[in-house]
Formats: sequence, structure tokens, C-alpha cells
Amino acid sequence: MIGYGFMGAAHSHAWRSAHRFFDLPLHPELRTLAGRSPEALAEAAARYGFAQTTTRWQDVIEDPEIDVVDICTPGDTHHEIALAALRAGKHVLCEKPLANSVEECEELAAAAEEARSRGVRSICGFSYRRTPALAYARQLVADGAIGEIRQVRAQYLQDWLSDADAPMTWRLQKDKAGSGALGDIGAHIIDLAQWITGTDIEGVSGTLQTVVPTRPAAGAMQGLGGKGDTSGERQEVTVDDVALFSVRFAGGVLGSFEASRMAQGRKNAMRIEVSGSQGAVAFDFERMNELEVYDAKAPAGRQGFTRVLTTEPEHPYAAAWWPTGHGLGYEHTFTHEVADLVRAIGEESDPSPSFEEALQVQRVLAAVEASAADASRWVGLPGRSA
Amino acid sequence: MIGYGFMGAAHSHAWRSAHRFFDLPLHPELRTLAGRSPEALAEAAARYGFAQTTTRWQDVIEDPEIDVVDICTPGDTHHEIALAALRAGKHVLCEKPLANSVEECEELAAAAEEARSRGVRSICGFSYRRTPALAYARQLVADGAIGEIRQVRAQYLQDWLSDADAPMTWRLQKDKAGSGALGDIGAHIIDLAQWITGTDIEGVSGTLQTVVPTRPAAGAMQGLGGKGDTSGERQEVTVDDVALFSVRFAGGVLGSFEASRMAQGRKNAMRIEVSGSQGAVAFDFERMNELEVYDAKAPAGRQGFTRVLTTEPEHPYAAAWWPTGHGLGYEHTFTHEVADLVRAIGEESDPSPSFEEALQVQRVLAAVEASAADASRWVGLPGRSA
Amino acid sequence: MIGYGFMGAAHSHAWRSAHRFFDLPLHPELRTLAGRSPEALAEAAARYGFAQTTTRWQDVIEDPEIDVVDICTPGDTHHEIALAALRAGKHVLCEKPLANSVEECEELAAAAEEARSRGVRSICGFSYRRTPALAYARQLVADGAIGEIRQVRAQYLQDWLSDADAPMTWRLQKDKAGSGALGDIGAHIIDLAQWITGTDIEGVSGTLQTVVPTRPAAGAMQGLGGKGDTSGERQEVTVDDVALFSVRFAGGVLGSFEASRMAQGRKNAMRIEVSGSQGAVAFDFERMNELEVYDAKAPAGRQGFTRVLTTEPEHPYAAAWWPTGHGLGYEHTFTHEVADLVRAIGEESDPSPSFEEALQVQRVLAAVEASAADASRWVGLPGRSA
Amino acid sequence: MIGYGFMGAAHSHAWRSAHRFFDLPLHPELRTLAGRSPEALAEAAARYGFAQTTTRWQDVIEDPEIDVVDICTPGDTHHEIALAALRAGKHVLCEKPLANSVEECEELAAAAEEARSRGVRSICGFSYRRTPALAYARQLVADGAIGEIRQVRAQYLQDWLSDADAPMTWRLQKDKAGSGALGDIGAHIIDLAQWITGTDIEGVSGTLQTVVPTRPAAGAMQGLGGKGDTSGERQEVTVDDVALFSVRFAGGVLGSFEASRMAQGRKNAMRIEVSGSQGAVAFDFERMNELEVYDAKAPAGRQGFTRVLTTEPEHPYAAAWWPTGHGLGYEHTFTHEVADLVRAIGEESDPSPSFEEALQVQRVLAAVEASAADASRWVGLPGRSA
Repeated sequence: MIGYGFMGAAHSHAWRSAHRFFDLPLHPELRTLAGRSPEALAEAAARYGFAQTTTRWQDVIEDPEIDVVDICTPGDTHHEIALAALRAGKHVLCEKPLANSVEECEELAAAAEEARSRGVRSICGFSYRRTPALAYARQLVADGAIGEIRQVRAQYLQDWLSDADAPMTWRLQKDKAGSGALGDIGAHIIDLAQWITGTDIEGVSGTLQTVVPTRPAAGAMQGLGGKGDTSGERQEVTVDDVALFSVRFAGGVLGSFEASRMAQGRKNAMRIEVSGSQGAVAFDFERMNELEVYDAKAPAGRQGFTRVLTTEPEHPYAAAWWPTGHGLGYEHTFTHEVADLVRAIGEESDPSPSFEEALQVQRVLAAVEASAADASRWVGLPGRSA
Repeated sequence: MIGYGFMGAAHSHAWRSAHRFFDLPLHPELRTLAGRSPEALAEAAARYGFAQTTTRWQDVIEDPEIDVVDICTPGDTHHEIALAALRAGKHVLCEKPLANSVEECEELAAAAEEARSRGVRSICGFSYRRTPALAYARQLVADGAIGEIRQVRAQYLQDWLSDADAPMTWRLQKDKAGSGALGDIGAHIIDLAQWITGTDIEGVSGTLQTVVPTRPAAGAMQGLGGKGDTSGERQEVTVDDVALFSVRFAGGVLGSFEASRMAQGRKNAMRIEVSGSQGAVAFDFERMNELEVYDAKAPAGRQGFTRVLTTEPEHPYAAAWWPTGHGLGYEHTFTHEVADLVRAIGEESDPSPSFEEALQVQRVLAAVEASAADASRWVGLPGRSA
Repeated sequence: MIGYGFMGAAHSHAWRSAHRFFDLPLHPELRTLAGRSPEALAEAAARYGFAQTTTRWQDVIEDPEIDVVDICTPGDTHHEIALAALRAGKHVLCEKPLANSVEECEELAAAAEEARSRGVRSICGFSYRRTPALAYARQLVADGAIGEIRQVRAQYLQDWLSDADAPMTWRLQKDKAGSGALGDIGAHIIDLAQWITGTDIEGVSGTLQTVVPTRPAAGAMQGLGGKGDTSGERQEVTVDDVALFSVRFAGGVLGSFEASRMAQGRKNAMRIEVSGSQGAVAFDFERMNELEVYDAKAPAGRQGFTRVLTTEPEHPYAAAWWPTGHGLGYEHTFTHEVADLVRAIGEESDPSPSFEEALQVQRVLAAVEASAADASRWVGLPGRSA
Repeated sequence: MIGYGFMGAAHSHAWRSAHRFFDLPLHPELRTLAGRSPEALAEAAARYGFAQTTTRWQDVIEDPEIDVVDICTPGDTHHEIALAALRAGKHVLCEKPLANSVEECEELAAAAEEARSRGVRSICGFSYRRTPALAYARQLVADGAIGEIRQVRAQYLQDWLSDADAPMTWRLQKDKAGSGALGDIGAHIIDLAQWITGTDIEGVSGTLQTVVPTRPAAGAMQGLGGKGDTSGERQEVTVDDVALFSVRFAGGVLGSFEASRMAQGRKNAMRIEVSGSQGAVAFDFERMNELEVYDAKAPAGRQGFTRVLTTEPEHPYAAAWWPTGHGLGYEHTFTHEVADLVRAIGEESDPSPSFEEALQVQRVLAAVEASAADASRWVGLPGRSA
């Protein structure tokens, strides 16, 4: 595994736990943790349960004992590492974003395609797909439970940037993060909407905004700024903190999307609602063990949204865990992701989301940016009309 | 009162009830009900409690005993009637839309301005403003409870057109209704958003869609089609049933708006959420006696949306009604509207929303249509940049 | 109408409104308002729309023009007035409690029975039965939608006595009010539970408590206490403010009941849940336009409580009002009550709840008190085993 | 660890995970798994990560390499194993119930007390205490946030016995399980209520019921019944499936309690609400990442239950996990329990809940049974008045 931050903690827990709850054809072992700072690395490796460490990520690629490379580093490094791993014949789990540009994603998708022919598996970490309620929503939609799809609405709302004095981080600088709320959280609802509806987005009209344009320099905040009075120093935020966009799916269905870090009181409100001719499904990650299901064919007088606790044996992934009504948490999405990947490797099938799917998400993000730069005019995805 | 449909029922109840719960300087009496069909008119007048009827609306205008004209007819007749009433020196309550075009609204706003100088009061029926929870939301925002406004999101979701075989009505024909979901329900959230934030919208980017383009002719549905096999006859829907639009308020705050009649399971989900630097308010008309309030200044660990039942004496209008926890219903918004209008007449002040405010809503609607017709490009309101 | 307090306002609104929304065989007129204080009476009569007033309630009984007597006075006067009215051949709407003792209720039930043979109708004001969601719950249960009843849980939670310095009122003195939370609000959930399940309670085990045993004298609070330091004067509360009781319905089903005015934050949480072998219904008056319905026969994976907005034409009373999703309020329960009573009078049928049903509620209350006085031992209702 | 069922899975996950998220002074290792069936044991040990197995639980006690014994067997074996472990100087984590009788619990509490003087730690597995929202509720109550406690209401509602044809299990036979809904799930709300309020229950009045008195023999259901037509064979259920009880806490506060497995649609609704003179807290395990908090001291008009997502750094245990808004699941309560136990061992302090606290819960259960057997009369706990 390369990278040991927040995602490293989540991923390593998943690698340690998946085979303890799911019947998997293979039993993963945590071998090498790669990172930059030797001290932090040693501590993380001990905590996460890795056998060894290295400050040279290439060591992981070159180690013949290693079968799977898990990439948890910042997005701008994904391209180089994933490419090397695929070429070396390692199965790859790459955190999202697949890369910071459409071009890099295209290259990675092509490499994954080529590697696939050699039996090398790859998967991009849109782990929210593995929320039981969302996987169940997809299943209901695919089974026709809501009829013909009519409309999609999706929001990813957080509030941690509402405070204008929250300090600067690399996530707010375009050269490092590539994008702001749009790419970091908007990408998730794009992926989910396409996946649940089984339909690609083919055009967008979007608007981006940076509500708080400057923030205190991190050092200044922490009193580490060095000489002089730097307490008032503020740095420019170069990415969006609010992204509004409308999308058109293949077939013409419209979707209303919003990604915001200015939504006071919304801590992790990743919401998606799909309306159809005969029903609807609605979800909010703040209540991740629930799916709201509406059945327009229910008897008159008894129609309404049904709050389904997705902890029954009939719900995806749920049978591996606890009795009905005993909910799961955020980290389970990663455990499910690892379980699916390990099963795919063992069964020699291709896991999802593929790098091609991640590329499609990146194309939507790029189109939103293009539209925003052109007064929100509709922009079509490559090969598609606006 | 002119018109006796659904709105006539709501308005007449309000006129009968307002002075029984509120201390008003004047005591309204229901005098004349005007309409087209003599039989239906007679029945409605008896039911609603009017003393007399007429099939000539001009009789109402000309009657010196009448002080207030309440216009509940379809939108395309508002302009002529309201203009005549104002010129005759009658106080006017005109249902929304004020008129079907910006030009007609401008003329009405000018006439109202002129009449005001003669002590004639006018009000446009955006009655949702009189929901206690929404009036309280406005008060909180005005008092600075949520700090500086950062973002608005508003939705008006219904589902009565989800069924592709729901029959054609005049509301779905552009020549009669002027507009579809946008003007009929979208207008409400535009008005509320501007009113609660105390800020005008000055630019929009919008998309309109007609999801179900044809519908069974009403007659065909009812087997009244006459000769031959007409059961399959379908007519063209000429207005939108979904409207998505982003707006920019004066000062630069963005808002995300949606009006839809394709939102399965959402019966009357008129929702508005205003996020600020120090808090937020959120509302859903399906739970009209509740306001969700978020206070970012609450002690760490105790922050969250507070579900306020707006039935306390401190809440607008609530003291006139029942003990705490005993909710109000839809029709109370009209009773409050009448109470405010009667008080304004008695106190010789100007009630709100004025015709100017209704004109501003109409301008936003027109801008959304213009943007939708130009690939969703941002369109500025008159005198304002896009 | 006799009495003009809070209930007088609600009842008179109902009498004015019922025939405006429901097709009734008769058209009620408000004739005489009776009460004690001439000034308050005159003001109330003007506000409520009565033609005349009297300080002698017997005038109402004796007036040959009056057909219906509506009794809104405190409970200790009901017996005398209702008895006189029934004997005089007036139809009677008597607010709950029917009377303050089982004996008086028995006498009234017998009088009502006798009057019925003369075509005189009587109804006791357990108006919550007319909440559309609760009437619909009853209908679902009667139709077998939840199968065989297994369990009932009911709570009526308020918080207005949580503050130990809330002042003394007559409602907290046994000689005037008869009972505290038990009789005032507990009576409602007893009536509803019996009505919805269609089954009588036949035994109870209960506990009563007075959490705050003394309260500031009302006068002292208002600085009207006269000479000396009376600000600290407190009077004894002689009724319960918390009542907990278990009940056994005929057939053996158990129910768990609580009535409390110490439930901080619960403003009017009248809740009832009925669990059956094949489903359940659950209700909370704080969201009076919603009924939660659970169907155990739904497909595996799709089971859950469905939030039904009871504003559809299929729901009791709803068709008389507004379009779907446009909620009703507290006062509508009274309008429905009057509509049902007027229809019963016109159709010469007997309305419900009858005085016999109100007597049964009083018997349950008495049994709870008897059990509470005997260390919560089970007490059977008359003619029934414990 | 002794026992490898559902609890074994949860506990072993906790032992594997606690030190990966919490900074603990010791690093636990999974050594021996004991159980009866060699095959199942081998499979479980591999899955859970134990180094070795034994079918003789005494081996665990006698192994000098083992420091902690975790008892996950059925309740009737706890007494013998825990006693042996304590005497052998092992730290003990014993699942609830501590034992099946008050006498056995007393003996264990005495043994734990004696062992404590030798530095041996013991804890009983009421793991729900480690739900962040509940631990935070306790903290708020202890800090005086809700003022003086006025009332408690607690429910543990499930529905898996609603189906009268759900098959017989050992949990429904008194000789094996000791108790039904009362002891199995009612015990949790008793423990939580005492812990959150910081007050012991000292008297109870209770009612027990077995709604479905016979159930299909498990074998018959599975077609394993052997010769003849056994498909209709039903066995007697000898424990309660519904328990209703009122309790009195030291100081006189009343509580209303219910444990039911007949509550259709309630999957794991463990609810507790504590009302105080200045506020309230309310919790439902079906939404385990939320705590509802009411502050009666909030400004008039802004009072209401605040939905706190207990995923902030300020909330107990939450800082060890994910960013705000990313919820935890059921199993985390066990991980927290292990973390607290390991820390207590390392710091030589006593963890909670102690065996004495578990004994107190058992005494309440016994008192409820005694009261139920005496027509629900109030029964005092030992040394306390009824």
C-alpha cells in the first residue's frame, strides 16, 4: 500500500477485515507500506499491521511477493504509480480520483484495458457504491422497480469550509488538488448517479464558485509562521467550494447536481434520489443504513416513502454482518470493496468501477469546468452532443 | 371575489375566518361572487357565504359598496381585472401569477404604484410567505441568526405528472397557462428565496424539459370522444414539467433551484434551505409546522439541526391560534394573508408582496426561459449583468 | 354553546366551517353563547359569530329555536348541563370529560340511551378520532391490514409542567379538575386505542406521580399577592403530572400507556402504535398529517415503515379539503366532528363517540386510579376480571 | 475466548481492531478459541484469527500465556467459567447476562471484588454503553445539561417473533435462556438507564406476556423431524416475548420500560429518553449515530430537539475514527469495549460495567419477574422499599 493518511487507515482496516466476514477465495496479507516520512511511516505500519516499510514506492512495484498495489496517495501521483503497477502486472486498487486530468485518465484506462488481457485486475475507489443501501437502490432500479427513469437529483453537502477562518490546506489549491468541491465530492455523486441508473451522462451545464476567496495561511494559524506579525496573512483559495450543475443522461433524463462545502449543518449529506415512472429511491449518507423507497403501484391511500433499514439478508453485503437492525458504518464500504476485488482476482473476473468508468467521471468533471468557464452553456461529452 | 375554483374556496374561508382569530381594525363581509357559469356560481356563493353573484366581473368593480376585489381567476385574466379594479379605487388581492408576461406585470406594478398614492392597497397572493415557519425563517435571517448568507437551495417537488397517462389539462397548454412547473410552482420558491434572504435575484441559468410530451385528451379519457376509436388520442404538452435553474442573488450568492412535477412520491415538497456563515434554516412544506434551524455557534458537540415546532407564541401568526404543538394547515396561509391585508387597509400601510415584488418574480421566470432557450447561458435581469 | 374558552374558539370555528367544506343535510347557525362574565361573553360572541348571549345556561336549554347544545365548560359542570339538555330534547355535543366521575358518566350514558329512543343525538368530544391519519389507521386495522393485533403502545407527552415555577392553575387542583395528566390527556389515548383496535380495555395496572408537588400561587407570580412577601408562596398540586399504566384489552392484548406533562421538548406528542401479526401503524400528533404503516407481507428487502401523507382523496375527510400534500391542522378535527354530528342528526343515525364510549373511558381512568392506590396491582373493569 | 457464535465474531473483530484505532498501552493477541464442536471451532478460529483451539475451556484458564478470558458462551455457563477465570487470576470480559440468577451473580460479584484486590480486572459486556451517542448522553446528563432528572422512558423493540410460525429456539425455553425479551433485551435498557442517569433502580412493577405460546419445533420446520407427520408439531414457549414495567429510581424518578419482540417493523429500536427540568436527551439505536438533545434554556422560539450527529471529535470514541458525518456501526461498540478494557488493564484501573453493576441489573430483572408473578404489585430491590 502506498500512502498512509486517512485513506490508508480505512484501506488497511478493510484488507485486515474482509476475509474475516466474507468467504473469499484468497486471504490477503499486508506486506509493505510505502510513504515519504520514515518516522510517520514506521508508526503507521505498526498501527495498520504492515510487515515492512519503504520510502521508495517503486519497491512495492518491484517486489515479486506483492500481488496487489493499493494507491492511497494524493491524486497527482496516481497516474505514475498506477501505470507502473499495471505494467508490472500488479492488480491495482487506486483511490479516486483516478488522476487529475482527462488525458491521464485516458492513458490509465488504456493501460488497464491492456493489462486486463494479461489477467491483471484494476479498480478505482469509488467506495460509496458499496454502501448496502446504494447497491440495493441500483438493484431496484435495474429490476424495474421504479419503472422508466424520469429524473435524478444528487447533492453532496458538507460544511467544513463555512467558517471563513478555517485554514488553508492543499485541498484548496488548484495545482495540488486539481479541483475543489466539484472533484473531491461531486465526483462521488456523478459516479453513483451513472452507476445506479446504468446510464452515462452525456452533457452538462455548470457553475462553480469560490465563496471564501482567501483563508488564513495554515502556518499563521498555528503560530508557526516564523518572524513578524503573520497572524493576518491570508492565502488565495484557487478551487471552487460550491459547484452547481445540471446534467443530461443518455436518453435525455435530466439531473440536478450540487456539491458544496458551504452547506452549514450538513456534515456528510451525500444524497441521491432517482424518480421513475412507477416509483423512486432516495438516500442520504448521514443515514447510511436506510433507503427510502416509493412505490407508485402501491394501493391508493397507502403510498409513501418506505424507510427500509438495509440490514436484512436480502440487502447487498448485509448477510455477512450482524442481525437485522444492527447498522454498518462508513468503513464497511471499504471492506466490501476489498472483498469484491479479492473475489474478482480469485475468480478471474473484472471488478467495478473500472478505470474506464473512472475516466467517464473525469470527463464529466472536465465538462462541468468547461461549461462554467463559458457562462454555463451546455457542453457535450466527447463524441456526444451538448 | 372573482373566480370560485380551488383558490376561491381557500380565499373565502380566509375572508370568513381572519377577523375571528386576529384583532383587525375592520371586519370583512363577503358580498359578490363573480364567475362565468350561473349554476356553479350560485352553488359556490351559497357554499362560500357570498350575498350575491354576477356573471359580469365588471359589476364587482362598479359596485360602490365593495372595497376589496379578490381575483382568483386563471392568470391570463388578471391583468385586465386588476387594472380595472385599481383604477376604480378598489383594494386588490390578486392571486399569483400577477400576469402571464413581464410587460403586463410592469403595467400592473405601475398602476399599483399610482393607486398607492391614492391610498389604494394591492397585494399579490404568494401566500406561502404566511406560513409561520417561513415567516420565522425570514425573521431569523434578518436578525443575523445565520450570519452572512452563503448559499440557497430551493425545490418545489410534486409528482402528479409522473403518470404518463394523466390526462391533458389547460395547465399543460402554453397558450392558456403561460408556463408549466416553472411558473406555477417555481414562482413560489423564487418569491420565498428573495423574501427570506431580503435580496433580489439578478441572473439565472436554466433548463426546461417536458418529460412526457403528449397526454391523453381529457375527453378521450372519459369516453366522451364521440365516434370512432379515439381512446388512443393524445395531445401535445406545450409547457415544461421540469425546470432546473441556478440563480445569482445581488451580492453574488448562488442558489440552486428545481421545480418538478415528475418527483415521484413528493406530494407538495416545497423546500428551501438558506446556509449562512453562522447557521442555516431549512423547511419542507410537507411538514409545514416545523423549521429546522442550525446554529454554528452552539457549543462543540451539540451542533445539529434543531427541529422547531413553530407553534409557540414567539412564532409569527401562531399566537392567534392554538396551544403549543397543535399545528396549522395549508389554508391558514390564506387567513394570515387576509389578516395582513385587512390590517394594512385599516392602518393605511402597504401590504406585501407588492405588485413590484410580483413583477420581480415574473422577471426571474422570463430570464429562466430566455436562458433555457439559449443553451442555459446565464441571463441577467433587466439592468443587471448576467 | 355554553363556554367560550379555548374550546369555545375551536368549536365555534367548526360550526361556522363544516357546511362550507362538507355536503351536509343541515346548515348550522350560531345562536346563543352562554357564560359567566358578561363582558368577556359579549366579546367572545362577537368574535365567534353568535347572535346573542346569556349568563344563564338554562336559557339555551329552554330556547325552542335551539336544536343543538354544545358544552365547552369545565368538566365538573358537564353532568348537570348535559342531563338538562338531553331531557329537553336537544342534541348534545359534550366536550370530554363526559363528567368527573364514573357515576355521573353512568347517569349521562343512561340519559343518552333514553334520549336516543326519542331521536335525540349525543356525542362526546374525543375529537382526535377525526384526525384523518387516525381514522385511516382505524380503517386499516379493521380491514385486517395488520393482521391479528399483538400489542399497543400509546403516549401523550407534553412538557408545560417541566418548569417547577410554572404557576398553579385549576387544572392542577383535584377538586376542580378531577384528575391531572391521566384524565386530561391520558383519556385521549385510551379512547383512541379502544377505537382503533375496536376492543375495550378490561384491566389496568397503573402508577401516578406528582413530580412537582407545589407551584407558585398564580397571584403571587403576577405580583397581585397583596401585602407582605408573598413572592415565595407556593400551593400544593393535588393531581398527577405523570401517569404510567399497562392495560389489557378484551382478548388479552397488552398495551403500554404513558401520559406526562414532564416530557421536556415534547409539545403535543400524542402517539399511538398498534402492532399486529402482519403489520403495524404508528402515529404522532406532532406530525398529524402523516401515518406510518408497516406491511410485514411486503417483499423481503422492501419492508419498512411507509410514511403516508394522509392528504389523498382515499383518506377520511381529506377529499373535502385541499390537493394532495397540503396538510390540515388541529382545528380540522373539530370541523370533522361537527360535520359528522350534523350528518348524523340529518340522517337520524347515532354519532360516535357515544356517551357509553365516554363512560368506558372514564371507567378505565377510575381503574388506573384504583390500581395506583393499591401498589399498581391489576384492577379489572366492572364485570371483568383483573 | 470461549464461544464462537455471533458474539464471538463481534468480539474477535474488536480484539483485532481496537489497538489499530486507539492508543492502547498493550497490544492484544488472539491465542486460543475454545468451543464444543471441533470442526466448527477450527473454521471459526481460522476465520477469527486465533492461533489455536481447544474443546476444553479449562485449557484457556490453565494456560499461563493467557491474560484475558473473553466469555461468549450461553448464559448458563458464565458462572462456572468466570469464577474459574477470576480465581486463576485472568482478567475477564463476560458477555451479558453475567449469570442466569441473582445468586450466581452475587457470587461472581464477590469473586470479582476479591480478585480486584489482586489486580484482576473484570467487565460485563453491556456493550451498548460504548455507543458514542449514549456515552455522550450520559456525559450531558452528568454535566447538568438537562437539569434535574424528571422521567425516563426506555424501549427495546424488535419484531422477529411477530410471525407465529417463526421456529422454536433455545432462547424461547426458560431452562436454557432463563428469561425472554425481559432478560435478553430488557436488560440492556435497564443497564443504560441506570448508567446514563447515574442512579439505581430500587423498585419495579411489571407484567410479562407470551403472545405466541407455541411454535413449530425447529426440526419439524426443517424436515428433520424423523418418522411420521411431524410437520404440525409445536412446542411450548416458556419465556416472555413482551415485558412491560415501570421502575422507580433512587430519589423517586419514575421510568416507563418496554421490551418486546412483537413490535412489527421495529428491527432494533433500542430507545431511551431522559427528561429533565432543563432539557432532554433521546436516542434510538436504529439511528445509532444520532442523539436528539433538547435545551429548555434555548431562546424562546428556537427550542426543539437538536439532531446531533455524534461523529465530532468532541463525542466519546469518535475522534479515533473518521471525519465528521461518517458514521459508525454496531460492531464499534465492542471495539470500544475492548479498548476501554485494555486501557484499564494497562493503567491498573477498574473498567465498567463491573460485575456489581451487572448484579444490579439482574436484581431488577428478578424484581420484575416477582412483580409480574404478583399481579404487578410494586416490588422493592433488596434492602430497598417497594
